[in-house]
Amino acid sequence: MQVIRSDIHRRHHCAELDGGKIIDSWEHPGRADMVDRATDEVDMAVSPPAVLDRRLLESVHDPGYLAFLETAWTRWVDAGHTTACAMAFTWPARRMTGPAPTTIDGLLGHHSFAADCSIGAHTWPAAAESAAIAQTAADRAVDAASAVFARCRPPGHHASRDQFGGYCYLNNAAVVAQRLRDRGHDKVAILDIDYHHGNGTQDIFYEREDVVFASLHADPRREFPYFLGHADETGRGDGAGANLNLPLPHGTGASDWLAALDTALGWITDAAPTAAVVSLGVDTYHDDPISRFTLATDDFPEVGRRLRRLPDPVVFVLEGGYATEQLGVNVVGVLRGFEPG
Amino acid sequence: MQVIRSDIHRRHHCAELDGGKIIDSWEHPGRADMVDRATDEVDMAVSPPAVLDRRLLESVHDPGYLAFLETAWTRWVDAGHTTACAMAFTWPARRMTGPAPTTIDGLLGHHSFAADCSIGAHTWPAAAESAAIAQTAADRAVDAASAVFARCRPPGHHASRDQFGGYCYLNNAAVVAQRLRDRGHDKVAILDIDYHHGNGTQDIFYEREDVVFASLHADPRREFPYFLGHADETGRGDGAGANLNLPLPHGTGASDWLAALDTALGWITDAAPTAAVVSLGVDTYHDDPISRFTLATDDFPEVGRRLRRLPDPVVFVLEGGYATEQLGVNVVGVLRGFEPG
Repeated sequence: MQVIRSDIHRRHHCAELDGGKIIDSWEHPGRADMVDRATDEVDMAVSPPAVLDRRLLESVHDPGYLAFLETAWTRWVDAGHTTACAMAFTWPARRMTGPAPTTIDGLLGHHSFAADCSIGAHTWPAAAESAAIAQTAADRAVDAASAVFARCRPPGHHASRDQFGGYCYLNNAAVVAQRLRDRGHDKVAILDIDYHHGNGTQDIFYEREDVVFASLHADPRREFPYFLGHADETGRGDGAGANLNLPLPHGTGASDWLAALDTALGWITDAAPTAAVVSLGVDTYHDDPISRFTLATDDFPEVGRRLRRLPDPVVFVLEGGYATEQLGVNVVGVLRGFEPG
Repeated sequence: MQVIRSDIHRRHHCAELDGGKIIDSWEHPGRADMVDRATDEVDMAVSPPAVLDRRLLESVHDPGYLAFLETAWTRWVDAGHTTACAMAFTWPARRMTGPAPTTIDGLLGHHSFAADCSIGAHTWPAAAESAAIAQTAADRAVDAASAVFARCRPPGHHASRDQFGGYCYLNNAAVVAQRLRDRGHDKVAILDIDYHHGNGTQDIFYEREDVVFASLHADPRREFPYFLGHADETGRGDGAGANLNLPLPHGTGASDWLAALDTALGWITDAAPTAAVVSLGVDTYHDDPISRFTLATDDFPEVGRRLRRLPDPVVFVLEGGYATEQLGVNVVGVLRGFEPG
C-alpha cells in the first residue's frame, strides 16, 4: 500500500488545557515519527503530497473559517498575547448565539469547541499540508484503483465546517471523501474507527446523502467530544438516514468492538457506496493513555481483514492514537491486515 | 444605605485561563476587602445575610445545575484530577447538542461557557452566600422601602439559568429581582451598568415580561461575553420587547456613557416597574485592567444621581470591577451619589 506523507507537521506542537492545567499536547510530532518508522519497516512505498487545491478545501470548510485559521496566530501576537499558542477562553455554548466577533479572543471561541487544541505559528502550514496529504491520497486511490494510506498530522475528524478542536483543524477525511466525489464516485462512505466520535466529519456531511458516515466510538455521554455522537443522530434533510453512530461503553474489548464494526460495515454495504474512507485512529488500544477501550496489538490485523468488505478504493486517513511506542505497529497492523505483503 | 455582606467568600479564589495561560483570577477576595473598607469609611450600616431559600434559587436556576455546582469539586477530585480548581476543556459550541454528559469533564463544559472561571473547594459555599446576600438585600429593601447594597462576591450577572462563566456561578441580580416579585412587586427592572453584558441575567428573564432587563456594555463583537448582548436581542415570547441592549464601543467616555444610561433609564420608566435592581460593576473605570471605557472616579457620583430616576426600592448588587485600589471608592461614589449622607 502506498503512503502519502510529509515532514511539514514537525514544527506544529501546541499546548492543551487538560485537567485544569496547560500541558504540551498529547498530539505531538513523535506520533507521526512512530508511524513512519513502522511503515518504513514493512517497505511501504512513500510519496509526498501534491499542492493543495484551495477550492477542494472550501467545499468542506467555510471560507471565513479558513481565513481565520490562516491569520489566527498573527492576530494573537498582534493583540499583545505572549504565549506560544493561541487558545480560546470562552465559547458560544448552547443558547449563546450572535454573529462572529471581530477580535481574536472572540474569534478563537467562535471557531472552536475545546481548549485541548490551540494555534501556534506553525499550525496552519501543518494543517494545510495534512489536508494536501489527504487530497493526494484520494487522487492516487482513484488513479490506481487501490488502497492508499494518508499519514496525516494533525488529525482531522473533530474539525467541523468552521470549528477546530480535539487536535483537529482541517478535516482530512472530509477532504478525501469530497475528492472521491469530485473524481466520479457517486456515493462515498466514511467509516470512523477512532476511539472518539468524528463529530467534525458528521457535522460536514450531516445534510448530505452522497457521503454516508458511520462511526464506532466511546459513548459521548462519558467521553470527548461529549456533545455529539449519540445514537439518535441519524442525519437531517437530504442526509436523513445517512449517519450511523454506534457509541460503546468504557472498557469495550475486541469482541464487542469487532461486532460493532461488523454492524457498521453491514450498514455501509447496504448504502452501496463505490469508494470508502477509513478514519483510522488506534486509540482503541488498551494502553492508550487517554482512552478506555481494550483492543490488543494482535487485534488490529483482524480489524484490517474485516475492512476488506469496504468497496475499492479505500483511503486510510490517520486520526488519533497516543500510546506512542505502539502507535506505528498498531497502524501497520490494520493496513497489513487489509492488504498483506 | 444598608450594606449586606459576609466573609464566607474569602476562601474562594480560583484559576482562570487568560491569554493562553492559567493565572490566579482577576476576581479575587481583595476586591471585596476594598469595597468593605470604602463603605466602612462612610459609616454605612452593615448586616449579615439570612439563610438562603433554596426554592428562591431554584426559581431562577435549573435544579440540576445547582446539584452540579454543589458536587462539582468533589467529583473533580474523585475523577483523579489534581489541580485546585475544576475547569472545563470542551463546550457544546453552536451546532453541538445532545444531552448532558454524565462525567465531570463533560458536565463542566455542559454547565459553562468560559474557562475564565473554575470551581474550587470553596466556590459553592461562597456562591451560595453571595446569593443569600442578594436575597437578604431584597427583603430589607422591601421591609424598609429603601435602597440596599448587596456586596456580593462572587458576582453573578454572567451566570445563566444553568451555566457558569465570567467569574459568576449564581445570578445574584436575578435572585433579587425574583425575590422582589415574590414580595409583591408586579414588575421589576434590572439595570446592568457593568462594563460587560449581563448575558446570564438576560438569559434567565428573556421570555418573561415581569422582569425587564436593560444593559449598557462594551460591544460584544469586540468584548466578552462575545456571544450575547447585541442590540437586536429584545426578548422572546412573553418577554418580547422586555430586553434592551445598548452596546458601546471601546474607548467610550463619561459623556457618551451617561447618555446611554439616560436612554436605559427612560426605557425603564416607560416599562413602569415598581422596584429596581442595579447590577453595579465599576469596570467602566479608565484604569480597570481588563476593560476599555474611560469613566473617572469623579463620574461615579453622577451615575448615582441619575439612578434616582429608578423606582423605589432599589437594590444595588456588586458585579465587576478589577482596578482593586479604586474599586471601593468608585462603588461608594455611585451609592452616595444615589443617596447622600
